[in-house]
Amino acid sequence: MKSLRSCCPISSSLDIFGDKWTLLIIRDFFAGKFLYSEFLNSPEKISTNILASRLKSLEENGLIIEGIKSSKTGKKSYKLTEKGKGLYDVIDAMANWGLQNIKGTAKRISVPPQ
Amino acid sequence: MKSLRSCCPISSSLDIFGDKWTLLIIRDFFAGKFLYSEFLNSPEKISTNILASRLKSLEENGLIIEGIKSSKTGKKSYKLTEKGKGLYDVIDAMANWGLQNIKGTAKRISVPPQ
Repeated sequence: MKSLRSCCPISSSLDIFGDKWTLLIIRDFFAGKFLYSEFLNSPEKISTNILASRLKSLEENGLIIEGIKSSKTGKKSYKLTEKGKGLYDVIDAMANWGLQNIKGTAKRISVPPQ
Repeated sequence: MKSLRSCCPISSSLDIFGDKWTLLIIRDFFAGKFLYSEFLNSPEKISTNILASRLKSLEENGLIIEGIKSSKTGKKSYKLTEKGKGLYDVIDAMANWGLQNIKGTAKRISVPPQ
């Protein structure tokens, strides 16, 4: 485990998930996506190298685990751990702020963590 | 106003405040800081150029406004707008996640938005 920059839980959390692509991937999990190809197809068009690096980091930090590769399709899947599911309130608060403050946004995530 | 990458309120929000330094500055506001020098002195040691660029961006996006410069000290101050104060739930959710999931963190912010 890396040493903390400060004992602040916000700063320490941001060192784990504080970049926009990581949080968009977390959003996608809560929207029911779990396949590598589904993350790639999200409207913000994440690149393959960023997606791969962020998934690796999320896995190393214990927020997601790799699922079983489908024997039919050979597709890689991932799922949120309990620690990852704990980010629901962060994502939900961001969605609410966006809806209230940014014109042209519409809510898509309504699934609470499973 | 920039066009949105998608109609997702989370993605659109992250385009405004989705980097770790911006969110640390917002945290500092909720911790009662409002002077340029106070942000600089936070334990994570933000650099002057990043601090200046993030404050400018927060101001352009209507999350903070510049306060009156003290005639005594000549110090620049800032304050959160209503839109900025709306981020309290985001910061609070991150703090709670950090406290629950990262050893060695301790809560410092207990002030609800004024």
